[in-house]
Amino acid sequence: MVCLSGGVDSCVTASIAAQTNEVALLHVNYGQRTEARELISFGEIADFFKAEKRLVLNLNFLGIIGGSSLTDESRALPEGDLARRDIPSTYVPFRNANILAAAVSWAEVIGADSVYMGAVEEDSSGYPDCRADFFEAFQQAVALGTHPESKITVVTPVIDMSKSEIVRQGARLGTPFDLTWSCYRDEQIACGECDSCLLRLKAFDEAGIPDPIPYW
Amino acid sequence: MVCLSGGVDSCVTASIAAQTNEVALLHVNYGQRTEARELISFGEIADFFKAEKRLVLNLNFLGIIGGSSLTDESRALPEGDLARRDIPSTYVPFRNANILAAAVSWAEVIGADSVYMGAVEEDSSGYPDCRADFFEAFQQAVALGTHPESKITVVTPVIDMSKSEIVRQGARLGTPFDLTWSCYRDEQIACGECDSCLLRLKAFDEAGIPDPIPYW
Repeated sequence: MVCLSGGVDSCVTASIAAQTNEVALLHVNYGQRTEARELISFGEIADFFKAEKRLVLNLNFLGIIGGSSLTDESRALPEGDLARRDIPSTYVPFRNANILAAAVSWAEVIGADSVYMGAVEEDSSGYPDCRADFFEAFQQAVALGTHPESKITVVTPVIDMSKSEIVRQGARLGTPFDLTWSCYRDEQIACGECDSCLLRLKAFDEAGIPDPIPYW
Repeated sequence: MVCLSGGVDSCVTASIAAQTNEVALLHVNYGQRTEARELISFGEIADFFKAEKRLVLNLNFLGIIGGSSLTDESRALPEGDLARRDIPSTYVPFRNANILAAAVSWAEVIGADSVYMGAVEEDSSGYPDCRADFFEAFQQAVALGTHPESKITVVTPVIDMSKSEIVRQGARLGTPFDLTWSCYRDEQIACGECDSCLLRLKAFDEAGIPDPIPYW
Protein backbone atom coordinates (compact mmCIF):
# COMPACT_ATOMS: atom_id res chain seq x y z
CA MET A 1 0.00 0.00 0.00
CA VAL A 2 1.52 3.27 -1.14
CA CYS A 3 0.46 6.77 -0.10
CA LEU A 4 0.53 8.60 -3.42
CA SER A 5 0.22 12.37 -3.49
CA GLY A 6 0.99 12.52 -7.18
CA GLY A 7 4.38 14.21 -6.69
CA VAL A 8 7.81 12.92 -7.67
CA ASP A 9 8.79 11.40 -4.32
CA SER A 10 5.64 9.34 -3.85
CA CYS A 11 5.63 8.24 -7.49
CA VAL A 12 9.22 6.99 -7.26
CA THR A 13 8.23 5.29 -3.99
CA ALA A 14 5.41 3.53 -5.87
CA SER A 15 7.94 2.41 -8.50
CA ILE A 16 10.12 0.96 -5.74
CA ALA A 17 7.19 -0.84 -4.10
CA ALA A 18 6.00 -2.15 -7.47
CA GLN A 19 9.37 -3.87 -8.00
CA THR A 20 8.45 -6.61 -5.54
CA ASN A 21 4.73 -6.27 -4.81
CA GLU A 22 1.35 -5.65 -6.31
CA VAL A 23 0.56 -2.10 -5.18
CA ALA A 24 -2.59 -0.68 -3.62
CA LEU A 25 -2.67 3.11 -3.90
CA LEU A 26 -4.10 5.66 -1.49
CA HIS A 27 -4.61 9.34 -2.16
CA VAL A 28 -5.78 11.87 0.37
CA ASN A 29 -7.71 15.09 -0.19
CA TYR A 30 -7.24 17.45 2.71
CA GLY A 31 -8.25 20.79 1.31
CA GLN A 32 -4.82 21.43 -0.22
CA ARG A 33 -4.78 24.16 -2.86
CA THR A 34 -3.99 21.82 -5.73
CA GLU A 35 -6.39 19.04 -4.69
CA ALA A 36 -8.04 18.76 -8.11
CA ARG A 37 -4.73 18.65 -9.98
CA GLU A 38 -3.26 16.06 -7.61
CA LEU A 39 -6.29 13.87 -8.13
CA ILE A 40 -5.69 13.83 -11.88
CA SER A 41 -2.10 12.76 -11.32
CA PHE A 42 -3.21 10.10 -8.86
CA GLY A 43 -5.65 8.56 -11.36
CA GLU A 44 -3.14 8.57 -14.19
CA ILE A 45 -0.36 7.11 -12.06
CA ALA A 46 -2.71 4.45 -10.64
CA ASP A 47 -3.58 3.49 -14.23
CA PHE A 48 0.12 3.35 -15.09
CA PHE A 49 0.72 0.89 -12.23
CA LYS A 50 -2.49 -1.02 -13.07
CA ALA A 51 -3.47 -0.71 -9.39
CA GLU A 52 -6.68 -2.65 -8.81
CA LYS A 53 -6.96 -1.41 -5.25
CA ARG A 54 -7.07 2.36 -5.17
CA LEU A 55 -8.77 4.64 -2.70
CA VAL A 56 -9.24 8.39 -2.37
CA LEU A 57 -10.05 9.53 1.15
CA ASN A 58 -11.42 12.85 2.33
CA LEU A 59 -9.36 14.24 5.19
CA ASN A 60 -10.71 17.75 4.64
CA PHE A 61 -10.86 18.20 8.40
CA LEU A 62 -7.18 19.13 8.09
CA GLY A 63 -8.25 22.15 6.07
CA ILE A 64 -10.95 22.94 8.66
CA ILE A 65 -8.38 22.76 11.47
CA GLY A 66 -6.23 25.09 9.38
CA GLY A 67 -2.88 26.46 10.45
CA SER A 68 -1.28 26.19 7.03
CA SER A 69 -0.95 28.34 3.92
CA LEU A 70 -1.27 25.11 1.93
CA THR A 71 -4.92 24.70 2.91
CA ASP A 72 -5.91 28.29 3.80
CA GLU A 73 -6.30 30.49 0.74
CA SER A 74 -6.34 33.61 2.95
CA ARG A 75 -2.72 32.95 3.96
CA ALA A 76 -0.02 33.81 1.45
CA LEU A 77 2.21 31.03 0.19
CA PRO A 78 5.84 31.72 1.07
CA GLU A 79 8.07 33.05 -1.67
CA GLY A 80 10.27 30.28 -2.99
CA ASP A 81 13.47 30.30 -0.91
CA LEU A 82 15.47 27.11 -0.54
CA ALA A 83 17.95 28.73 1.88
CA ARG A 84 15.27 29.27 4.54
CA ARG A 85 15.88 27.25 7.69
CA ASP A 86 12.62 27.60 9.65
CA ILE A 87 9.47 25.51 9.22
CA PRO A 88 7.58 27.16 6.34
CA SER A 89 3.94 28.27 6.47
CA THR A 90 2.99 25.40 4.14
CA TYR A 91 3.49 22.98 7.06
CA VAL A 92 0.13 21.31 7.75
CA PRO A 93 0.18 20.45 11.46
CA PHE A 94 0.93 16.74 11.92
CA ARG A 95 -0.28 15.99 8.40
CA ASN A 96 1.77 12.86 7.83
CA ALA A 97 0.52 11.30 11.07
CA ASN A 98 -3.07 11.81 9.89
CA ILE A 99 -2.33 10.34 6.46
CA LEU A 100 -0.38 7.42 7.93
CA ALA A 101 -3.09 6.63 10.47
CA ALA A 102 -5.71 6.46 7.70
CA ALA A 103 -3.32 4.41 5.55
CA VAL A 104 -2.70 1.91 8.32
CA SER A 105 -6.46 1.55 8.90
CA TRP A 106 -6.95 0.72 5.22
CA ALA A 107 -3.89 -1.56 5.16
CA GLU A 108 -5.30 -3.49 8.09
CA VAL A 109 -8.65 -3.97 6.34
CA ILE A 110 -7.22 -5.05 2.96
CA GLY A 111 -4.46 -7.15 4.53
CA ALA A 112 -1.50 -5.14 3.19
CA ASP A 113 1.71 -5.83 5.08
CA SER A 114 3.48 -2.56 4.25
CA VAL A 115 2.55 1.10 4.12
CA TYR A 116 4.93 3.06 1.88
CA MET A 117 5.31 6.81 2.15
CA GLY A 118 7.63 8.92 0.01
CA ALA A 119 8.76 11.30 2.74
CA VAL A 120 12.21 12.86 2.38
CA GLU A 121 14.22 14.15 5.33
CA GLU A 122 17.22 15.76 3.66
CA ASP A 123 16.73 18.31 0.93
CA SER A 124 13.06 18.67 1.90
CA SER A 125 11.19 21.60 3.36
CA GLY A 126 11.95 21.15 7.05
CA TYR A 127 8.58 19.67 8.07
CA PRO A 128 9.02 17.83 11.39
CA ASP A 129 6.77 14.96 10.29
CA CYS A 130 9.09 14.12 7.37
CA ARG A 131 11.94 12.96 9.59
CA ALA A 132 13.10 9.35 9.90
CA ASP A 133 12.81 9.38 13.69
CA PHE A 134 9.16 10.45 13.44
CA PHE A 135 8.45 7.45 11.20
CA GLU A 136 10.30 5.11 13.56
CA ALA A 137 8.17 6.29 16.46
CA PHE A 138 5.02 5.98 14.39
CA GLN A 139 6.02 2.43 13.41
CA GLN A 140 6.06 1.58 17.11
CA ALA A 141 2.57 3.02 17.51
CA VAL A 142 1.41 0.91 14.55
CA ALA A 143 2.93 -2.27 15.98
CA LEU A 144 1.21 -1.67 19.32
CA GLY A 145 -2.09 -0.19 18.11
CA THR A 146 -3.19 -2.74 15.50
CA HIS A 147 -4.17 -6.41 15.51
CA PRO A 148 -1.09 -8.43 16.57
CA GLU A 149 -1.34 -10.56 13.42
CA SER A 150 -1.52 -7.52 11.11
CA LYS A 151 2.24 -6.90 11.32
CA ILE A 152 2.15 -3.74 9.22
CA THR A 153 5.50 -2.10 8.44
CA VAL A 154 5.85 1.60 7.62
CA VAL A 155 8.37 1.89 4.78
CA THR A 156 10.01 5.15 3.70
CA PRO A 157 12.45 4.04 0.99
CA VAL A 158 13.53 7.50 -0.17
CA ILE A 159 13.74 9.23 3.21
CA ASP A 160 17.55 9.37 3.26
CA MET A 161 17.98 10.20 -0.42
CA SER A 162 18.56 13.62 -1.89
CA LYS A 163 15.91 14.80 -4.33
CA SER A 164 18.34 14.29 -7.24
CA GLU A 165 19.04 10.71 -6.12
CA ILE A 166 15.28 10.13 -6.06
CA VAL A 167 14.99 11.40 -9.63
CA ARG A 168 17.87 9.20 -10.77
CA GLN A 169 16.42 6.17 -8.99
CA GLY A 170 13.02 6.91 -10.51
CA ALA A 171 14.51 7.19 -13.99
CA ARG A 172 16.19 3.79 -13.58
CA LEU A 173 12.84 2.26 -12.59
CA GLY A 174 10.88 3.91 -15.40
CA THR A 175 8.85 6.21 -13.13
CA PRO A 176 6.28 8.15 -15.19
CA PHE A 177 7.52 11.65 -14.23
CA ASP A 178 5.31 13.16 -16.95
CA LEU A 179 2.25 12.15 -14.89
CA THR A 180 3.46 13.73 -11.62
CA TRP A 181 2.63 17.17 -10.22
CA SER A 182 4.47 19.26 -7.63
CA CYS A 183 3.50 22.93 -7.99
CA TYR A 184 1.67 24.50 -5.02
CA ARG A 185 0.34 27.41 -7.09
CA ASP A 186 -0.99 26.38 -10.46
CA GLU A 187 -2.89 23.49 -11.91
CA GLN A 188 -2.23 23.64 -15.67
CA ILE A 189 1.36 24.76 -16.09
CA ALA A 190 3.76 24.67 -13.14
CA CYS A 191 4.82 28.09 -11.85
CA GLY A 192 8.50 27.22 -11.49
CA GLU A 193 8.82 29.67 -8.58
CA CYS A 194 7.23 28.16 -5.45
CA ASP A 195 9.32 26.07 -3.01
CA SER A 196 7.96 22.87 -4.43
CA CYS A 197 8.78 23.79 -8.04
CA LEU A 198 12.23 25.05 -7.07
CA LEU A 199 13.04 21.79 -5.26
CA ARG A 200 11.82 19.75 -8.21
CA LEU A 201 13.70 21.75 -10.83
CA LYS A 202 16.91 21.63 -8.79
CA ALA A 203 16.56 17.85 -8.39
CA PHE A 204 16.12 17.17 -12.12
CA ASP A 205 18.92 19.62 -12.93
CA GLU A 206 21.34 17.96 -10.51
CA ALA A 207 20.33 14.52 -11.76
CA GLY A 208 21.00 15.62 -15.35
CA ILE A 209 17.57 14.39 -16.40
CA PRO A 210 15.05 16.62 -18.21
CA ASP A 211 11.82 17.33 -16.32
CA PRO A 212 9.05 16.36 -18.76
CA ILE A 213 6.30 18.62 -17.36
CA PRO A 214 5.69 22.13 -18.75
CA TYR A 215 6.61 25.31 -16.82
CA TRP A 216 5.65 28.91 -17.28
CA MET B 1 -7.92 19.66 24.68
CA VAL B 2 -10.07 16.64 25.41
CA CYS B 3 -11.29 14.04 22.91
CA LEU B 4 -14.90 13.62 23.98
CA SER B 5 -16.96 10.78 22.54
CA GLY B 6 -19.81 11.43 24.91
CA GLY B 7 -19.31 8.22 26.88
CA VAL B 8 -18.49 7.82 30.57
CA ASP B 9 -14.71 7.47 30.24
CA SER B 10 -14.18 10.56 28.10
CA CYS B 11 -16.61 12.61 30.21
CA VAL B 12 -14.75 11.73 33.43
CA THR B 13 -11.52 12.53 31.59
CA ALA B 14 -12.96 15.97 30.77
CA SER B 15 -13.82 16.44 34.47
CA ILE B 16 -10.22 15.60 35.38
CA ALA B 17 -8.80 18.00 32.77
CA ALA B 18 -11.23 20.74 33.85
CA GLN B 19 -9.84 20.58 37.41
CA THR B 20 -6.71 22.43 36.34
CA ASN B 21 -7.33 23.80 32.86
CA GLU B 22 -9.82 25.51 30.63
CA VAL B 23 -10.92 22.72 28.30
CA ALA B 24 -11.26 22.68 24.53
CA LEU B 25 -13.42 19.78 23.37
CA LEU B 26 -13.15 17.69 20.22
CA HIS B 27 -15.70 15.21 18.95
CA VAL B 28 -15.24 12.97 15.96
CA ASN B 29 -17.86 11.55 13.63
CA TYR B 30 -16.56 8.48 11.84
CA GLY B 31 -19.67 6.79 10.61
CA GLN B 32 -20.28 5.02 13.94
CA ARG B 33 -23.80 3.66 14.38
CA THR B 34 -24.71 6.06 17.16
CA GLU B 35 -23.17 9.15 15.59
CA ALA B 36 -26.28 11.31 15.99
CA ARG B 37 -26.80 10.33 19.62
CA GLU B 38 -23.15 10.90 20.52
CA LEU B 39 -23.33 14.35 18.99
CA ILE B 40 -26.19 15.28 21.31
CA SER B 41 -24.19 14.14 24.32
CA PHE B 42 -21.15 16.04 23.08
CA GLY B 43 -23.09 19.31 22.78
CA GLU B 44 -24.71 18.95 26.19
CA ILE B 45 -21.44 18.02 27.90
CA ALA B 46 -19.61 20.88 26.16
CA ASP B 47 -22.30 23.25 27.48
CA PHE B 48 -21.87 21.76 30.96
CA PHE B 49 -18.13 22.49 30.87
CA LYS B 50 -18.76 25.92 29.26
CA ALA B 51 -16.21 24.99 26.60
CA GLU B 52 -15.67 27.99 24.34
CA LYS B 53 -13.47 26.02 21.99
CA ARG B 54 -15.33 23.02 20.63
CA LEU B 55 -14.94 21.26 17.31
CA VAL B 56 -16.70 18.40 15.56
CA LEU B 57 -14.64 16.75 12.84
CA ASN B 58 -15.73 14.42 10.10
CA LEU B 59 -13.53 11.33 9.94
CA ASN B 60 -16.12 9.41 7.99
CA PHE B 61 -13.34 7.90 5.90
CA LEU B 62 -13.02 5.39 8.76
CA GLY B 63 -16.50 4.17 7.88
CA ILE B 64 -15.55 4.06 4.20
CA ILE B 65 -12.45 2.00 4.99
CA GLY B 66 -14.71 -0.28 7.00
CA GLY B 67 -13.58 -3.41 8.77
CA SER B 68 -15.80 -2.92 11.82
CA SER B 69 -19.30 -3.80 12.88
CA LEU B 70 -19.39 -0.41 14.62
CA THR B 71 -19.42 1.44 11.31
CA ASP B 72 -20.80 -1.20 8.93
CA GLU B 73 -24.52 -1.79 9.37
CA SER B 74 -24.31 -4.98 7.28
CA ARG B 75 -22.12 -6.61 9.94
CA ALA B 76 -23.83 -7.87 13.08
CA LEU B 77 -22.85 -6.37 16.40
CA PRO B 78 -21.45 -9.05 18.72
CA GLU B 79 -23.71 -10.36 21.43
CA GLY B 80 -22.77 -8.84 24.75
CA ASP B 81 -20.18 -11.14 26.33
CA LEU B 82 -17.69 -9.72 28.79
CA ALA B 83 -15.85 -13.05 29.13
CA ARG B 84 -14.71 -12.97 25.49
CA ARG B 85 -10.94 -12.66 25.13
CA ASP B 86 -10.43 -11.91 21.42
CA ILE B 87 -10.62 -8.50 19.74
CA PRO B 88 -14.34 -7.96 19.04
CA SER B 89 -15.82 -7.03 15.66
CA THR B 90 -16.53 -3.52 16.94
CA TYR B 91 -12.79 -2.78 16.72
CA VAL B 92 -12.35 0.05 14.19
CA PRO B 93 -8.88 -0.48 12.71
CA PHE B 94 -6.40 1.96 14.28
CA ARG B 95 -9.22 4.32 15.25
CA ASN B 96 -7.52 5.96 18.18
CA ALA B 97 -4.46 6.79 16.10
CA ASN B 98 -6.68 8.58 13.60
CA ILE B 99 -8.53 10.49 16.32
CA LEU B 100 -5.31 11.38 18.14
CA ALA B 101 -3.61 12.54 14.95
CA ALA B 102 -6.51 14.90 14.22
CA ALA B 103 -6.56 16.03 17.86
CA VAL B 104 -2.85 16.83 17.83
CA SER B 105 -3.29 18.83 14.60
CA TRP B 106 -5.99 20.92 16.26
CA ALA B 107 -4.04 21.23 19.50
CA GLU B 108 -1.05 22.54 17.56
CA VAL B 109 -3.19 25.18 15.83
CA ILE B 110 -4.99 26.42 18.98
CA GLY B 111 -1.87 26.18 21.15
CA ALA B 112 -3.15 23.52 23.56
CA ASP B 113 -0.34 21.84 25.47
CA SER B 114 -2.17 18.59 26.27
CA VAL B 115 -4.40 16.17 24.39
CA TYR B 116 -6.54 14.12 26.79
CA MET B 117 -8.11 10.83 25.76
CA GLY B 118 -10.27 8.65 28.01
CA ALA B 119 -8.91 5.31 26.84
CA VAL B 120 -9.03 2.42 29.33
CA GLU B 121 -6.71 -0.58 29.13
CA GLU B 122 -8.04 -2.84 31.86
CA ASP B 123 -11.68 -3.73 31.94
CA SER B 124 -12.11 -2.50 28.36
CA SER B 125 -12.93 -4.38 25.18
CA GLY B 126 -9.48 -5.59 24.18
CA TYR B 127 -8.86 -3.02 21.45
CA PRO B 128 -5.09 -2.84 20.78
CA ASP B 129 -5.17 0.96 20.40
CA CYS B 130 -6.47 1.38 23.97
CA ARG B 131 -3.27 0.16 25.62
CA ALA B 132 -0.86 2.37 27.56
CA ASP B 133 2.13 1.29 25.48
CA PHE B 134 0.35 2.35 22.29
CA PHE B 135 -0.15 5.83 23.75
CA GLU B 136 3.47 6.02 24.87
CA ALA B 137 4.64 5.20 21.35
CA PHE B 138 2.20 7.72 19.89
CA GLN B 139 3.49 10.36 22.31
CA GLN B 140 6.95 9.84 20.83
CA ALA B 141 5.57 10.32 17.33
CA VAL B 142 3.89 13.55 18.50
CA ALA B 143 7.09 14.87 20.06
CA LEU B 144 9.03 14.19 16.87
CA GLY B 145 6.37 15.06 14.29
CA THR B 146 5.20 18.50 15.46
CA HIS B 147 6.79 21.93 15.83
CA PRO B 148 9.55 21.63 18.48
CA GLU B 149 7.98 24.47 20.48
CA SER B 150 4.50 22.89 20.47
CA LYS B 151 5.42 20.41 23.24
CA ILE B 152 2.09 18.61 23.16
CA THR B 153 1.58 15.86 25.73
CA VAL B 154 -0.86 12.98 25.23
CA VAL B 155 -2.61 12.39 28.57
CA THR B 156 -4.67 9.28 29.38
CA PRO B 157 -5.64 9.81 33.04
CA VAL B 158 -8.03 6.86 33.35
CA ILE B 159 -6.07 4.29 31.35
CA ASP B 160 -5.03 2.23 34.39
CA MET B 161 -8.33 2.53 36.23
CA SER B 162 -11.08 -0.04 36.31
CA LYS B 163 -14.42 1.13 34.96
CA SER B 164 -15.84 1.26 38.47
CA GLU B 165 -12.93 3.41 39.66
CA ILE B 166 -13.65 5.76 36.78
CA VAL B 167 -17.29 6.03 37.86
CA ARG B 168 -16.29 6.70 41.48
CA GLN B 169 -13.72 9.29 40.40
CA GLY B 170 -16.29 10.91 38.12
CA ALA B 171 -18.85 11.03 40.92
CA ARG B 172 -16.33 12.78 43.19
CA LEU B 173 -15.69 15.39 40.48
CA GLY B 174 -19.37 15.96 39.70
CA THR B 175 -19.26 14.42 36.22
CA PRO B 176 -22.66 14.81 34.50
CA PHE B 177 -23.30 11.09 33.91
CA ASP B 178 -26.88 11.87 32.93
CA LEU B 179 -25.57 13.56 29.77
CA THR B 180 -23.36 10.65 28.67
CA TRP B 181 -24.18 7.87 26.21
CA SER B 182 -22.60 4.43 25.79
CA CYS B 183 -25.02 2.09 23.98
CA TYR B 184 -23.92 0.80 20.56
CA ARG B 185 -27.44 -0.20 19.52
CA ASP B 186 -30.03 2.39 20.41
CA GLU B 187 -30.31 6.14 20.49
CA GLN B 188 -33.26 6.90 22.79
CA ILE B 189 -33.17 4.31 25.55
CA ALA B 190 -30.04 2.22 26.14
CA CYS B 191 -30.40 -1.48 25.26
CA GLY B 192 -28.64 -2.78 28.37
CA GLU B 193 -27.38 -5.81 26.43
CA CYS B 194 -24.54 -4.79 24.10
CA ASP B 195 -20.91 -4.96 25.30
CA SER B 196 -20.83 -1.26 25.90
CA CYS B 197 -24.02 -1.25 28.03
CA LEU B 198 -22.88 -4.33 29.98
CA LEU B 199 -19.54 -2.71 30.82
CA ARG B 200 -21.26 0.49 31.88
CA LEU B 201 -23.87 -1.22 34.05
CA LYS B 202 -21.22 -3.40 35.70
CA ALA B 203 -19.11 -0.33 36.46
CA PHE B 204 -21.93 1.64 38.12
CA ASP B 205 -23.02 -1.49 39.97
CA GLU B 206 -19.53 -2.16 41.35
CA ALA B 207 -19.09 1.51 42.22
CA GLY B 208 -22.39 1.43 44.12
CA ILE B 209 -23.60 4.50 42.25
CA PRO B 210 -26.90 4.57 40.34
CA ASP B 211 -26.64 5.02 36.58
CA PRO B 212 -28.94 7.98 35.82
CA ILE B 213 -29.72 7.12 32.18
CA PRO B 214 -32.80 5.07 31.18
CA TYR B 215 -32.55 1.44 30.02
CA TRP B 216 -35.02 -0.83 28.27
